[in-house]
Amino acid sequence: MENEIIQWIYQAAEKIKAALNDELVIDEKNGRTDLVTNVDKETQDFLVDKIRTYDPDAHILGEENGQDQTDISNGRVFVIDPIDGTMNFVLQKENFCIMIAVFEEGIGQLGFIYDVMRDDLFWGGPKLGKVFHNRKELPKPANTKLADGLIGMGVSLVTGENKFHTKEIGREAMGVRILGCAGLDFIAILKGTQNGYISRLSPWDYAAGIVMMQQFDMAFSGFQDQPLSFNGREFFKGGTQAVMSEITEYDI
Amino acid sequence: MENEIIQWIYQAAEKIKAALNDELVIDEKNGRTDLVTNVDKETQDFLVDKIRTYDPDAHILGEENGQDQTDISNGRVFVIDPIDGTMNFVLQKENFCIMIAVFEEGIGQLGFIYDVMRDDLFWGGPKLGKVFHNRKELPKPANTKLADGLIGMGVSLVTGENKFHTKEIGREAMGVRILGCAGLDFIAILKGTQNGYISRLSPWDYAAGIVMMQQFDMAFSGFQDQPLSFNGREFFKGGTQAVMSEITEYDI
Repeated sequence: MENEIIQWIYQAAEKIKAALNDELVIDEKNGRTDLVTNVDKETQDFLVDKIRTYDPDAHILGEENGQDQTDISNGRVFVIDPIDGTMNFVLQKENFCIMIAVFEEGIGQLGFIYDVMRDDLFWGGPKLGKVFHNRKELPKPANTKLADGLIGMGVSLVTGENKFHTKEIGREAMGVRILGCAGLDFIAILKGTQNGYISRLSPWDYAAGIVMMQQFDMAFSGFQDQPLSFNGREFFKGGTQAVMSEITEYDI
Repeated sequence: MENEIIQWIYQAAEKIKAALNDELVIDEKNGRTDLVTNVDKETQDFLVDKIRTYDPDAHILGEENGQDQTDISNGRVFVIDPIDGTMNFVLQKENFCIMIAVFEEGIGQLGFIYDVMRDDLFWGGPKLGKVFHNRKELPKPANTKLADGLIGMGVSLVTGENKFHTKEIGREAMGVRILGCAGLDFIAILKGTQNGYISRLSPWDYAAGIVMMQQFDMAFSGFQDQPLSFNGREFFKGGTQAVMSEITEYDI
C-alpha cells in the first residue's frame, strides 16, 4: 500500500507545482486567515479518486469538500490533507505539505508528510516498523527536555491570550519556532530539530504526524491529556516523552 | 569586490559543512540561549583573514572575537556574521546563514546572505543597483500591507511582555512566522514571502539585509523610528513601506 500512496503523493505534487504558475482561486473558510484554494480542492479530489479506485471500501477523512466528519475508529480510514499550510502555499509558494495517514480500526498504521517544494518525504509507522526520510531510514531522536530544544507553536496560540502558557513554555525552551504548517513542525519533531509542538489542529493536520511519532515512542494528546478526538479543531500537544511531561505540568 | 566576497562565502560554507560532522565546542555568551561555537569563531577568523588580505585598510564589525565595536561611518567597513542563527546551527544543523555587508562612509553598498544548507545566496545593493538570488535578478516585491502578508518576529519579542504589540501586529497580519535566524527573515522579505520583521538585533544581524532592502526601497528603523545605531543589540523593525507605516502606528 505504501508504494501506491507515495506514487499518488508525487503525482499530486506535480499537479500542485504546475498550478503555481496559474492564478489561484482563493476562498475564506472560517475567517480571513483560514483559506482554501482551487488547488486544495482539486488535489483532494485527485487523492480521493486514487483511494476509491485502490480500495472502494475505505473511508476518507479529509480537509476539503465536506469529507471532514468521518469516524476514525471504523474500518480503514485514509486521512488526507491535500495542502497543509495553505497560507504559506498562497503567500510563499513554498513551506507547505501533502499529508496522508492510514488508520485501521482506529489504530494509526502509516503516515506520509511530503514537503513539496523541498522534495522531502517522511513516511512510515507501525505497519512498517520504521520511519523513512525519502529512501533512508530515519533514526529515532533523543528524548530531550524542553530546555535542550526548540518548540514549535501554532500562530493562534501566540497571538491570542496566554492561556496555553506559551510564554512560560517558550522561555523554558531554547527557543520558539512558528512555521505556519503543521507538517513542517511534525517533520522537525521526527528529525529531532524541534522536540515539541503545541497548536490548534484538525485531524488531517496531526494524523500523519502522530502515526510516525508513535513509531518513535513519542507522546501526543489533546488538552489536559485527553485523547485526540479526530473530530474538529482542538488543542494539540506533542513531542518527546520528556517535553510532554514538562508541558503537562502547565495543566494544558 | 562582489565576486571575491561570494568566493569567501562559498569557501566558508564548505568549512562549516565539514565541521557539522565533528563535535561542536559550545559556549554561552549572554545567557543559555545566546550561544557561540568554535565554528562561529573559526569562520569569522577565516573571513577576517580574507578581508585583511583583500583590503588591509578596511575596518571590520563582526559578531565574534571582540570585533563588535567598530564605527560604521568611518571608511570602508565589512560587517560580518559568520553564522547567523547559531541556535539553529547547533540544534538543527540547518536554517542558518553567513552574512556580509559592505558599508562605505556609513552608506550600505553591498549585502550578502547565504542560506548554507539550502545553497541559496541573496546578494546585491546600491553598488550594483540590483539584488540577485543566486545568478538570477530578484524582482522587487509588491508594497503589500500587514493584512496581506506574513510578519516575521524574533523569539524574545513573543516570549517577553507584550510591549512591542506583537499580539496586535500578529493578529492584523495574515500570520506570524518565527524562524530563529534573521538572515532567513531578510531573505523572506526580499523574496516577498514575508512583508515585515520585528526583532531585537545586533548590527551584524541586520547589516546585509537592510542594504538589499534599501535597493528595493523598503523601510527599516530602530525603536520609534530612530535610525539604527550599529552599536549593540536594539529593537529592529523593517518591511514594505506600507507595513512600516502600519507598525509605526503602534508607537514602536
